[in-house]
Amino acid sequence: FNPTTQNGIPDIPSGPLDIYRKKASFSWKQMLQFLEGDEIIAFKQHVFRTLESDPLFARQPGEDIPVEQKRELAFRRCKQLFKYDFVTRDDVMQNPWKMTILNDCLGMYDWSLGAKYFLNKGVSPFHILLMLCLSEFVISSPDFEAAKFWVGNLGKTATHSVVFAQLYTPDGQCHGLHSFIVQVRDPKTLLAMPGVMVGDMGKKLGQNGLDNGFAIFHNVRIPRENLLNKTGDVTPDGRYVSPFKDPNKRFGASLGALSGGRVGITRMALVNLKLAVTVAVRFSATRRQFGPKEDEEIPVLEYQLQQWRLLPFLAAVYALEHFTRSFCMNFVEFQIGLLMKDKSDRQAELGREIHAMSCASKPLGSWTAQRGIQECREACGGHGYLAMNRLGELRDDNDPNCTYEGDNNVLLQQTSNYLLRRIESPLETVNFLEDMNSILQRKFTVGSVEECMNPGVPLAAYKWLVCFLLGESQRKLFHEKSSGLGDFEARNNSQVYYCRSLAIAYIEHTVLQRFHDLIQDEQTPAALRSVLGRLCALYGLWTLTNHMAILYQGGYFSGRQPVDFIHTAILTLCGQLKDDAVALVDVIAPPDFILNSPIGKADGELYKNLWSTVMQGKNVLERPSWWAEFCSDKPAVGSLRAKL
Amino acid sequence: FNPTTQNGIPDIPSGPLDIYRKKASFSWKQMLQFLEGDEIIAFKQHVFRTLESDPLFARQPGEDIPVEQKRELAFRRCKQLFKYDFVTRDDVMQNPWKMTILNDCLGMYDWSLGAKYFLNKGVSPFHILLMLCLSEFVISSPDFEAAKFWVGNLGKTATHSVVFAQLYTPDGQCHGLHSFIVQVRDPKTLLAMPGVMVGDMGKKLGQNGLDNGFAIFHNVRIPRENLLNKTGDVTPDGRYVSPFKDPNKRFGASLGALSGGRVGITRMALVNLKLAVTVAVRFSATRRQFGPKEDEEIPVLEYQLQQWRLLPFLAAVYALEHFTRSFCMNFVEFQIGLLMKDKSDRQAELGREIHAMSCASKPLGSWTAQRGIQECREACGGHGYLAMNRLGELRDDNDPNCTYEGDNNVLLQQTSNYLLRRIESPLETVNFLEDMNSILQRKFTVGSVEECMNPGVPLAAYKWLVCFLLGESQRKLFHEKSSGLGDFEARNNSQVYYCRSLAIAYIEHTVLQRFHDLIQDEQTPAALRSVLGRLCALYGLWTLTNHMAILYQGGYFSGRQPVDFIHTAILTLCGQLKDDAVALVDVIAPPDFILNSPIGKADGELYKNLWSTVMQGKNVLERPSWWAEFCSDKPAVGSLRAKL
Repeated sequence: FNPTTQNGIPDIPSGPLDIYRKKASFSWKQMLQFLEGDEIIAFKQHVFRTLESDPLFARQPGEDIPVEQKRELAFRRCKQLFKYDFVTRDDVMQNPWKMTILNDCLGMYDWSLGAKYFLNKGVSPFHILLMLCLSEFVISSPDFEAAKFWVGNLGKTATHSVVFAQLYTPDGQCHGLHSFIVQVRDPKTLLAMPGVMVGDMGKKLGQNGLDNGFAIFHNVRIPRENLLNKTGDVTPDGRYVSPFKDPNKRFGASLGALSGGRVGITRMALVNLKLAVTVAVRFSATRRQFGPKEDEEIPVLEYQLQQWRLLPFLAAVYALEHFTRSFCMNFVEFQIGLLMKDKSDRQAELGREIHAMSCASKPLGSWTAQRGIQECREACGGHGYLAMNRLGELRDDNDPNCTYEGDNNVLLQQTSNYLLRRIESPLETVNFLEDMNSILQRKFTVGSVEECMNPGVPLAAYKWLVCFLLGESQRKLFHEKSSGLGDFEARNNSQVYYCRSLAIAYIEHTVLQRFHDLIQDEQTPAALRSVLGRLCALYGLWTLTNHMAILYQGGYFSGRQPVDFIHTAILTLCGQLKDDAVALVDVIAPPDFILNSPIGKADGELYKNLWSTVMQGKNVLERPSWWAEFCSDKPAVGSLRAKL
Repeated sequence: FNPTTQNGIPDIPSGPLDIYRKKASFSWKQMLQFLEGDEIIAFKQHVFRTLESDPLFARQPGEDIPVEQKRELAFRRCKQLFKYDFVTRDDVMQNPWKMTILNDCLGMYDWSLGAKYFLNKGVSPFHILLMLCLSEFVISSPDFEAAKFWVGNLGKTATHSVVFAQLYTPDGQCHGLHSFIVQVRDPKTLLAMPGVMVGDMGKKLGQNGLDNGFAIFHNVRIPRENLLNKTGDVTPDGRYVSPFKDPNKRFGASLGALSGGRVGITRMALVNLKLAVTVAVRFSATRRQFGPKEDEEIPVLEYQLQQWRLLPFLAAVYALEHFTRSFCMNFVEFQIGLLMKDKSDRQAELGREIHAMSCASKPLGSWTAQRGIQECREACGGHGYLAMNRLGELRDDNDPNCTYEGDNNVLLQQTSNYLLRRIESPLETVNFLEDMNSILQRKFTVGSVEECMNPGVPLAAYKWLVCFLLGESQRKLFHEKSSGLGDFEARNNSQVYYCRSLAIAYIEHTVLQRFHDLIQDEQTPAALRSVLGRLCALYGLWTLTNHMAILYQGGYFSGRQPVDFIHTAILTLCGQLKDDAVALVDVIAPPDFILNSPIGKADGELYKNLWSTVMQGKNVLERPSWWAEFCSDKPAVGSLRAKL
């Protein structure tokens, strides 16, 4: 039985965490309703409750499950998801955001299940790329190096694969990369097709429910109809025809479409961070250690150091929550344009801006999650090192977000290339660059810590920072080229400390600007503005601390005060937010069943939850199977102790 | 067959990595001989070859082994290690360093095996602490919260446990923490003793060969003789007697002894970083992507960005290699003093200085390894995400180094407490503070990038930084106390940005100073000074970049030049070191069998090694056992594609 209030939000199980809940400055249900809305809240509850009610989805925290069994479980659960059919065609048309929310929900349960489901559903943003030599529709991998790893579902079960290959027509001409459907397994037997070697890459650091595979082709003949002819086709007599006159436009369309994966990953990384922060904040609010008096221990959340370790990541969750949501909506707008065959300049500019944003938001999101999960794991001490508390799984499952769909560091180059070109900006993320010269004249003129706690302070600093780094990057590129380097080397030598920093500062500014705008928005309930403002200021000041040396170098900062003010403002904001932290986490937390972490449970009965999980483990109190061997032939112990 | 040269160092298997080896500016064998010496080189080879020759130690990269089987394997291998008896009593007495080297070697193979072995050997620096109510030698845990987790070997096999408990004599007086030996299992059956509940904590993020356990006692009576009476004893008639008159001295002796664990962990973290850097550098030197010309791809190590991501961690390996070695020797000196019952002031001061150093070196080492392994994993892209390449295991096994034997952040307080007291420094790590006032007058006066590449530049900056942060910390503490806070709160509010930064800067300075002194040393071969100097400068400048805002804030830096020079110097040093990187890694790498990472193999046959490992995996090309179910009842796929 789940008690539900009239607005449809179930109450949180009560317990020791209530001490903090009572101190909160806002209503977590109001915040949830503001952020999600009734429809999404009801949808998420439906998904969560359906999974919780189905024994196939039952699990024990920290279970040790072999990879093969993980694959089987993911397969069975995936099949079940198709039966549940949580999002129908009509649902998606009415509210495209539901697709992302479903992915959030499945990912909170298990990312490899979510990935497997969406790959099978055929709407995955993830693409399969095999570098192959293809001529006359006979496909061969030149050697092992050309076999592509990592294709999702290909390890065990995929029967067909989309293959990107260079297309050569009989006249010997190469028409560039095209996509083909190649049958890799017999759907009746799951055995590989003749000429195809298809297999499983083996264990990964995480997401082992998903079977990633490789494929190697040896003279496999495929029917002409299997060319996916959206961008080009070959006639029966071997001629190449393409609807795109301008190869640049074709490239532009691809750029936009390829952004989907990165938009999605930014969101997925955020979901991981939400779960980790939930676990660590609830743990910190119930775990007591030491105190000003000998006989009373205080929750570790009361320590400034613990606040400083965790609360900036909680602020990042709220900043990225709004950013990923609004960014997904931008992407939907772009996709609608594609469907409508919108050939306007704005549509093309939108594609490039979204490409630039996604190439930086994926690094920002995945790294923030990576560092945040690690900090949460360490902040939970030994409990964080127990598999049952899930922080390890979150870290392992988040990890590929840093490298797939483009390595983070490499992607950032795409963003800086866009900024250096300074083209149109339908989403207004770079409009302020028009005032570059006047912005660069500005200085940090904050007169007090109180003033520094205004989100406008880091926002103004970021505007200066992006302008400064843009100027520095241009100068650096020019200098490298002037010294005789080619374009390739000049760009490579301008990444570290220049273009890379520029791209990061740009996306941090964008996230901050959007969060700032949200708080200013009339629709935002007055009762929530204060706590949202603190989160915004904390996020902005905290990310800004990574750039303070540059702010000094370029003269925006001078003297002692800027660093003093910013540091004090961060710690003051942490102190103000610590009593809101548990309520802020209640807003983002899934039900206990989904979170699956004893120390992160909503009631905060830390030790009860931990002990019952330990005791329910496998063979907890049992002797090992090899006990007799241990007892019969023991090595002499302690032989060296006397000497040391 | 291992080809061995006349000085006893086997040659490295040749292959594609030879391209870089030929470019190296120094002889890797000379470097190895300088760092390790003939005796240790031979000893390590003996250990490595013995393990490689024993089928019990055979393994496949990336194998998926259940936790229970990991425990059994570790047990069997541990037993075998007792037979091999690599280090005899005489060996340890002649060369105490051999014990650390044996731990290095076993850890390179598998940390949980190393831990299990040394715990059984009875010379582990790791301690067991149970908070219990103990009176009249009847021992009871008050509740679940008081049960202590994490005791190594206790999960499955330990028969006796050392328990720390408050000692109450019959007169009701408490004599503080004392240690007792309590029998927890019957050695003949491995079943728990009456009144003892002892069990396994379950799966951890890593080191699962080691069975960590918990114990709860219910009125367990233990013999009086089981009190470990080094610091106090109870007579048969129930009176308490202690050889220590001064409780402070007793505490001081404990402080020193407890440092052993942290000294060891600093070294263990370094070993993890060595392995990760070896994998990532060898991968980067053989993995080719893109290039200035269309038809030729260049090794990713040629990219400045990749150099900047990896080479500072390679420099950290060399800096920490020398630091951990010299610090272990300091600790041996301290231990000899303890054995000799040295009651001098110097011995007491040495204990406190080692305590302060170890409380900062453990955080520095474990965090550097944590971040370095993560960077290596990302720098290897998808290959780094494959379990077989071992970067995940290294990260998981290194992870507890950040939190056990004291949480890193909490430990740093111990170091800053020492610095704020400014007492004697037998190891001379704080002697320069005597010149604090004149050091604080200094400025950064470097005139060129070339000058900036001198290790003396970051060293001088660190001296100023430690002095500045010490002054700031004192001021902050004074300010907090003046505002009416008690000692507990005042200290807590002075950690972030003050005492914590101070402790980190202090240990970074110490590591850098020792590395700098090594290069200046007459014994250091002239042919190695150039490359060691570059590593030292790179390490110093790179760690210094974390503190540049403070250097500006305090006025040590001003204007544009300092940051420009330092950034350019770092990138220039990376460029100079990239041709030495493979040889530098050859010095620190264990044999392929121990490293157990296809992409990190010494011959650099990247794809051959990777593919043969993939193909040797379990069920690579086989259908899943549930294939029939998959084929018979497939969900409809692609149902949504048409709409999106």
